Amino acid sequence: MSYDVAIVGMGAAGLQAAISSSRKKARTVVLGRPEDSALYGAEVENYFGVPRTSGKELLRTGMEQAESFGAELRQEDVIEMSKSEGGFKLLSDMGTEIEAKALIVASGIMRKKLNIPGEKELFGKGVSYCASCDCNFYKGKPVAVIGAGSEAAVSAELMTHYASKVYWVAAELDASEGLREKALKAGAELVSSPPKEIGGDDKVSRLTLEDGSELEVNGVFIELGARSTTDMAMDLGVMPTPEGEIKVDKDFSAGVEGVYACGDITGKPWQVAKAAGEGGVAGERAAKYARGL
Amino acid sequence: MSYDVAIVGMGAAGLQAAISSSRKKARTVVLGRPEDSALYGAEVENYFGVPRTSGKELLRTGMEQAESFGAELRQEDVIEMSKSEGGFKLLSDMGTEIEAKALIVASGIMRKKLNIPGEKELFGKGVSYCASCDCNFYKGKPVAVIGAGSEAAVSAELMTHYASKVYWVAAELDASEGLREKALKAGAELVSSPPKEIGGDDKVSRLTLEDGSELEVNGVFIELGARSTTDMAMDLGVMPTPEGEIKVDKDFSAGVEGVYACGDITGKPWQVAKAAGEGGVAGERAAKYARGL
Repeated sequence: MSYDVAIVGMGAAGLQAAISSSRKKARTVVLGRPEDSALYGAEVENYFGVPRTSGKELLRTGMEQAESFGAELRQEDVIEMSKSEGGFKLLSDMGTEIEAKALIVASGIMRKKLNIPGEKELFGKGVSYCASCDCNFYKGKPVAVIGAGSEAAVSAELMTHYASKVYWVAAELDASEGLREKALKAGAELVSSPPKEIGGDDKVSRLTLEDGSELEVNGVFIELGARSTTDMAMDLGVMPTPEGEIKVDKDFSAGVEGVYACGDITGKPWQVAKAAGEGGVAGERAAKYARGL
Repeated sequence: MSYDVAIVGMGAAGLQAAISSSRKKARTVVLGRPEDSALYGAEVENYFGVPRTSGKELLRTGMEQAESFGAELRQEDVIEMSKSEGGFKLLSDMGTEIEAKALIVASGIMRKKLNIPGEKELFGKGVSYCASCDCNFYKGKPVAVIGAGSEAAVSAELMTHYASKVYWVAAELDASEGLREKALKAGAELVSSPPKEIGGDDKVSRLTLEDGSELEVNGVFIELGARSTTDMAMDLGVMPTPEGEIKVDKDFSAGVEGVYACGDITGKPWQVAKAAGEGGVAGERAAKYARGL
C-alpha cells in the first residue's frame, strides 16, 4: 500500500501528526498501538485547555480525529524500515508492506525499568516514571524517588514541594553537586540501600530495600532515564544520541531527507503538549514535503 | 510584585507555559487578555485529544488550569519591558509593576488586515486569516483566498481540496512560479481586481471587487502575512526577524539570557498544538532557570 506520509507510533505525537498531515491532504497512515504510548495509563491535568482526564480518553479522541480527516490507523508494529525508490518501505508484524514518500518517527521512548517485583503490577497505581508529569497527584503523601543521576536529583527536589516526605533512594550518587545539594537542602532524605520490591494491594503502600528496611510510601518515582524504541531508524541513516534520542531541526527533520521525528523521542520534557505540538509541525512539514508544496 | 517567571500573553502558549512553570514550583504571573489571542473566536477541531470545541472554551479551561497550579493571571496589557538587576521589569497599562527573574514572550502575532468593510464584522463568520486552520469548515462551499504571495498560493491550492470553488484574488502575483502553477492547476481561479467589501448578513455571502463584480462565497481567507505585537522585546535585546518573528533555540530561549518565546510569534504553522507544545517546554525551561535548577 502506498501513502504520502507514514507515521510510526500511535501516541500524542503520532496522532497529532496524522491530524495535521491528513488535513493538509496528504494520504496518511499511522502504525503502532495506543497501549504502547506513555500516555496510556496516565492521568493528565497539565495539557492546555483540557480538564483532568485519562490518557486513554485523549488517545481514543485523537484516533477518532485522525480518522475523521482521512488518516488510516493500523494497530500493527513496524518491524523493519528501509529506503526505497519513492521514499521509504515499512514492514509490520502482521506482514503489511507500506510505502510512503515521507516518514515520521513518533514511537516514543521506553522508560528504563528497575525490574523489581511490584513495579509492573503497580504502574499507574503509585509507580511513575515521570515526576514532573505526576507530582501533583502526590500532594501530602510520602514518596520515594529512585535514581542516582541529576534527573533523579531534580525530581527529588521537585517532590519536596508536593509530598509530605521524600526518600531519595540512590546507591551511588551520580548527580551534579549543585543539584544534589539543592535536593538535600529542600528536605529529601538520602537512602543508600538499593530497592528490592514495591508493595501494596491495588496501590503502592511500601518500598522494601535490599537491607530489609521498609519505606512507607504512596508513590515510587523511577528516574533512571530512557531507552529508545527506534533503533530501526538507524537503518535509514538517522543517528540517535547515546541517550537514544533523535536530534531534530526546527522543522523536525531527523537529518535524513523525508524523515521526521517528534514526541518523547526528540528529548525532554516528556509532556503531552510538547509531543502534540511537535507532531503538529512534523505532520505539516512531512505533508508539504510529500506533496511537493 | 516579584515573581520567578513572568509570561506576556494569555493564549494557548502563555497559558501552557504558566501551567508548566507553576507545576515546577516557580512563582508565575501571566499578563495579557485572552480575547487578544488568535484562539478567541476560533473553532478548533485539529488539537490532539480534544473533540471539536471553541477557542473560548479552551482558553477558559486553560486559565482555570493555570490558576489551579498557583499561577496568577492579570488581564492587563504590558506596555513596557526593561532589564533590571534581578532580571526584568514590566509595566502594565493599569500601572502594575512586575519584577521577574525570567520572561516568556507569548504574545502572538496579529494577522495583517485588509481593512475593507465587512472584514471586522464578519471575522469568525466566514472571514478567516488561516486556511490550514479552518479549511475543513468550508467543505463543498465557494471561497475566496486573498493575497499575492506564496502563502496565499499554498492556501488556494489547499482550499481546492475542500471548497466547491476557489477564487484566488491577487492583483499582482508575487508567489513563486511552482506554487502558483500548482494552485492554478488544482483549479483555483485567478481574479485580479482588488477586493473592496465583504458582504453578508450574520455570515459571509459575497466578496465585492473594485471593478464592481461580485463573487458569491461563504468564506474569505485573508492571507497577507503577519505583524508582530512584540516590538517591546527589542528593548531587551531580542531581535525579531523582518517578518516580526522571534527566533528561538530548542529550549525556546530568545537569544537573551532569561528571555524565552513561544507560540505563533516563533513562526508558522499557527496551530493550537504547536503553541501549547512550545509553551510547555518554555515554561519548564524558564522555571528551571529562575529557580537555579
